[in-house]
Amino acid sequence: MSPESPAAPAPSTIGPELTAADPVRMSVIGLGRLGRLHAENVAGRVPGARLVRVVDAVEDVARAQGERLGVPWSTDPADALGDDVEAVVIVAPTPLHPELIAQAAAAGKAIMCEKPIASDLTAGRRAADAAEAAGVLLQIGFHRRFDPAWAHARERVRVGELGEVQLFRSQLWDQRAPAASFLADSGGLYLDVTVHDLDCARWMVGEVEEVTAHGAVLVDQEIAAVGDLEIGVVTLKFASGALGIIDNGRSAVYGYQASGEVLGTQGAVRIGDDHRIHDLQWRTPEGARTDWQGDFQTRFAPAYVAELEAFARAVRGGPATGATGADALAAQRLAAACERSRAERRTVVVAELDDDGA
Amino acid sequence: MSPESPAAPAPSTIGPELTAADPVRMSVIGLGRLGRLHAENVAGRVPGARLVRVVDAVEDVARAQGERLGVPWSTDPADALGDDVEAVVIVAPTPLHPELIAQAAAAGKAIMCEKPIASDLTAGRRAADAAEAAGVLLQIGFHRRFDPAWAHARERVRVGELGEVQLFRSQLWDQRAPAASFLADSGGLYLDVTVHDLDCARWMVGEVEEVTAHGAVLVDQEIAAVGDLEIGVVTLKFASGALGIIDNGRSAVYGYQASGEVLGTQGAVRIGDDHRIHDLQWRTPEGARTDWQGDFQTRFAPAYVAELEAFARAVRGGPATGATGADALAAQRLAAACERSRAERRTVVVAELDDDGA
Amino acid sequence: MSPESPAAPAPSTIGPELTAADPVRMSVIGLGRLGRLHAENVAGRVPGARLVRVVDAVEDVARAQGERLGVPWSTDPADALGDDVEAVVIVAPTPLHPELIAQAAAAGKAIMCEKPIASDLTAGRRAADAAEAAGVLLQIGFHRRFDPAWAHARERVRVGELGEVQLFRSQLWDQRAPAASFLADSGGLYLDVTVHDLDCARWMVGEVEEVTAHGAVLVDQEIAAVGDLEIGVVTLKFASGALGIIDNGRSAVYGYQASGEVLGTQGAVRIGDDHRIHDLQWRTPEGARTDWQGDFQTRFAPAYVAELEAFARAVRGGPATGATGADALAAQRLAAACERSRAERRTVVVAELDDDGA
Amino acid sequence: MSPESPAAPAPSTIGPELTAADPVRMSVIGLGRLGRLHAENVAGRVPGARLVRVVDAVEDVARAQGERLGVPWSTDPADALGDDVEAVVIVAPTPLHPELIAQAAAAGKAIMCEKPIASDLTAGRRAADAAEAAGVLLQIGFHRRFDPAWAHARERVRVGELGEVQLFRSQLWDQRAPAASFLADSGGLYLDVTVHDLDCARWMVGEVEEVTAHGAVLVDQEIAAVGDLEIGVVTLKFASGALGIIDNGRSAVYGYQASGEVLGTQGAVRIGDDHRIHDLQWRTPEGARTDWQGDFQTRFAPAYVAELEAFARAVRGGPATGATGADALAAQRLAAACERSRAERRTVVVAELDDDGA
Repeated sequence: MSPESPAAPAPSTIGPELTAADPVRMSVIGLGRLGRLHAENVAGRVPGARLVRVVDAVEDVARAQGERLGVPWSTDPADALGDDVEAVVIVAPTPLHPELIAQAAAAGKAIMCEKPIASDLTAGRRAADAAEAAGVLLQIGFHRRFDPAWAHARERVRVGELGEVQLFRSQLWDQRAPAASFLADSGGLYLDVTVHDLDCARWMVGEVEEVTAHGAVLVDQEIAAVGDLEIGVVTLKFASGALGIIDNGRSAVYGYQASGEVLGTQGAVRIGDDHRIHDLQWRTPEGARTDWQGDFQTRFAPAYVAELEAFARAVRGGPATGATGADALAAQRLAAACERSRAERRTVVVAELDDDGA
Repeated sequence: MSPESPAAPAPSTIGPELTAADPVRMSVIGLGRLGRLHAENVAGRVPGARLVRVVDAVEDVARAQGERLGVPWSTDPADALGDDVEAVVIVAPTPLHPELIAQAAAAGKAIMCEKPIASDLTAGRRAADAAEAAGVLLQIGFHRRFDPAWAHARERVRVGELGEVQLFRSQLWDQRAPAASFLADSGGLYLDVTVHDLDCARWMVGEVEEVTAHGAVLVDQEIAAVGDLEIGVVTLKFASGALGIIDNGRSAVYGYQASGEVLGTQGAVRIGDDHRIHDLQWRTPEGARTDWQGDFQTRFAPAYVAELEAFARAVRGGPATGATGADALAAQRLAAACERSRAERRTVVVAELDDDGA
Repeated sequence: MSPESPAAPAPSTIGPELTAADPVRMSVIGLGRLGRLHAENVAGRVPGARLVRVVDAVEDVARAQGERLGVPWSTDPADALGDDVEAVVIVAPTPLHPELIAQAAAAGKAIMCEKPIASDLTAGRRAADAAEAAGVLLQIGFHRRFDPAWAHARERVRVGELGEVQLFRSQLWDQRAPAASFLADSGGLYLDVTVHDLDCARWMVGEVEEVTAHGAVLVDQEIAAVGDLEIGVVTLKFASGALGIIDNGRSAVYGYQASGEVLGTQGAVRIGDDHRIHDLQWRTPEGARTDWQGDFQTRFAPAYVAELEAFARAVRGGPATGATGADALAAQRLAAACERSRAERRTVVVAELDDDGA
Repeated sequence: MSPESPAAPAPSTIGPELTAADPVRMSVIGLGRLGRLHAENVAGRVPGARLVRVVDAVEDVARAQGERLGVPWSTDPADALGDDVEAVVIVAPTPLHPELIAQAAAAGKAIMCEKPIASDLTAGRRAADAAEAAGVLLQIGFHRRFDPAWAHARERVRVGELGEVQLFRSQLWDQRAPAASFLADSGGLYLDVTVHDLDCARWMVGEVEEVTAHGAVLVDQEIAAVGDLEIGVVTLKFASGALGIIDNGRSAVYGYQASGEVLGTQGAVRIGDDHRIHDLQWRTPEGARTDWQGDFQTRFAPAYVAELEAFARAVRGGPATGATGADALAAQRLAAACERSRAERRTVVVAELDDDGA
């Protein structure tokens, strides 16, 4: 690996330069925790984008955010698809995604939709088809693709700096398990959490042919009660012959973790392993300590801005650097294969599953 | 040091919440490298600020940036002080700072001015007095105060987590020496570079009573030719009795460095010591390697945004968390004392110098 | 996890104090690369042991080492079991282990034998039985148990500092694949390499109930030609319900790696992850670099001394802190289960295998 | 800096190979804490040395250690200089060093003597002269020269890998201040502590021409009562024009620290900065923590063994890689210059001092 290798441009800086003089006009549908973050980012942290409208089904929420951000608000998604809007960011509940994507596509708007694209593959496939048929951009919110560390590593892995990839490792652990009510509708650990690593595996290394999945509930019986897993381990076999291992957990008390490693015949790269909040080391009689990041919004704050920047550039004709609808469906299908593998206690060849994951 | 100690709020989040609905309207005077960064940040990365006008003495520069950022432009500083402007960011050449501060103060505008406040202490003092007499906010661009790591460490040091401070260490090294032409007007290493560490020392630990300074030119004789130093070492004695050591250099080939450490009777904290660009570790036959940050704009990108955010909050009535005019003059006086110490090869008691640094 | 928790004593310091005045008299059988290291350690680096005799089947080797270390030499193993010997270190080829163990047991000598205890479980079981019947100490050379980092972590994990263990991760990669001739007799990746992680998993977390194993040859077709694997991934299910993942490789070009992690409900510990040779960081225009350890003899040099020290203490009546014959057989049985899992592409319940691994 | 640069051999492996068959026969005089460590190392951890006799003025101490280590003991230093002894390790109280060196030199024994060589330069000079006149090897116990990290860095600095050295930084902090009674006779912070950094500065970079020293007592008034310093800061100017900064303290609550850095025109190296006891990282809700080394005997355990190994090799005709009597006197003279600098509040040119430090 040559130290002279020119750093690849970050995905968020590829494509036409955006100017504050002519920003991409965006609306946001859905103003929950993540929706508010997207709306704030569009409004004030993405130089080439301007927030023009916010929508939430709950009137008080829509009004409060609209007033705070200085834009018109509404409870009707159709208002987010008007003539003053070029692109829409969909952060509504998952069951609404397919219909909202279809409406936005029909209105000719570029679409960024949070993951997962749909609750089931059949609906997801229809939504992706609608966008494609309408010829509109559809980007799915796999934000890790825009994390500076992951993106930079991926570029250098793809051009061969590590030689032939032998092993992919990835870890994603939340700090605290979501409420049981959320878990019940989450689609399960593999679809809700592992799917990020599965997308990442495809994006970093290539297609996955086989999965073998395990899972356990050791402590939190509420998780077992809704039929979900507390921790999971997935082994991958890539089409290239390389192997992969993913581990996930709902609750890493010591802090949110999203890290990985790619090992190749000429070197290895470790990604996102140092979850310090600040570049500080506290040295006390108890040892040398760094403070640890608590959640994904802190860890991936720059990634959430960068994914909107990349989306804006793509809207203006740049290449689509984010996950496409097809990428979203592929990752979701792998998650379905993991479920089957665990249920049947055997390795599952992904090709066994039909397009709807059955 | 208790892990439960509530993290102090970042300086940039103290004061009234700013909303995109009612942003602070700012102009920027001076559109060199740093001026452009400030203008871009105001225009697109500080949620509570809006860029309304840019000014540069060079018409082409002013026009290009105005068009790029979508705001009116001008070559006349007076245009940056009109009724549509609440606050002005001064990034013009240092000799113009005092007059621009005086004009902005007279126009009742809040002022953020890049360091140093003036080429000499006498002019600087008059400018600071003008702002004070007019009752307008004056913030000087010591951006390290807004770096998340430095700011967080400082809050915890000030509340006593490390016990009594014994030693302050600080290192600031540029990657490449500026052009000789710049050096000739820079005021010298102590005023141009060390001044950041001197401000930081006062801000972290308290007033400095004595300085002893050394310097050398080992390699780059162009630096010697303009009477400047390539590296410098300064020892401090604080009013509290604590000691401090600062070292600086014009050219650290391995990359820009701005780090420090505070050692107290109950613990120590190391600040900003890990200058990785990304959280990546490359493992190759040559060893385990992290990529290194090249310059201050990369290292301090978040700090430059945070200082404008803090400025905007202060404009709207929040506390002045940045360096004041008095702070700027105090640091500049310490730099003058360093010059005298080195010239006379002895420890200099800062009180020896009069208000004009003579 | 309380920082006040008293550090557990290192395994090598448990038991009676050994004095140079009355050292444990040891002989070494087998003077290959590792045998020479053991002999040198006994001769000069373990304060409580004294080397009294060396044996190797090749006369020139035996003579050279005997003269170098200042002790009588021989080509006959029986000479290593004379009256002047209290304890014997067996480092002969694996097929000879069972017979040598039986002879040493019959002679009433304490035995340290390199892993694996035998080429097959049946012979291994007989050897372990012979030692037990004779009432002599039998320690198998799983040296990782004596690495200061692994041993310290294990003590604190076992007393519950991390709460309930959820996940065990372990990585063991050689820097360069052994010669094909060695591979052909090595027993395969799982028995030759993974066995260390399997032993470690049992020792750190507890018994393993199920394994699922994968493997691949991507590059080195010589490895495929002898029917072995280049890389391997094994998933474990512990009796406690915890999961485990192990990955191994024959050739990590960037350097030997032996690291792990234990994640529990109250915290996690990462073990042996920083393979620097020296505590040096080189900062150059190419980045910040640490030099990497090349092989297991460098990485585990202190562990090899500590395991002999622990052995010597056990000989003098201290507790047996090393792996026993039963431990060796248990790990070997897990390796056999991995082979079956991979061959049959399914999860294998360890209890499926009989005592002889069939 | 080329990664291919062959690692220089460690100083302790230069010279003739030592064999256990013909070890260097050593005695140890003085069995305090450090003396016992040296005796244990000679007895059991240095393959090429054998302990043949121990001496301490206190009969009980001498007897206990002799019996424990299995060698004859005595209270008379002359017994350590008999015909069965090739080399003597002097760890007696400092005031006795010159006379013991003179006696050992007269007896033709190779000498390793703990630092400082003497309580004053005049006596030290006489002792060094005696050894030289007798043609015997005299090595002074500056153990940092044998720490693997420092020694490796020094070799690569000396062959020019960092280009021209610009700045040397060094930090040495004890964890707990010694008893006031020890301090009163210690010669003061500069002679007792800083002297290690001063030796290191000369050894790494070259001769020192000027020193400027500061010091303070902030907390522990017992230290002030005996006229000593709690912390010290020293600035160096090397003959090459490079600058250096040293800081020291009697009590770093967070743990013993002995680290440094060399910055050159082509790169920098940071040495011994990671004072972890084990390669473990504990991850808990309080952050990511490494355990910290408590004292110099833990930190420098391998260095104490290596310095005896190097000494043994030099006894058998290898080059003298340790500090010589002249080195010891030079460092001691620099410490005296520091005292003068602080007393007179000015930079001191070392050449001002005569050979006796006056």
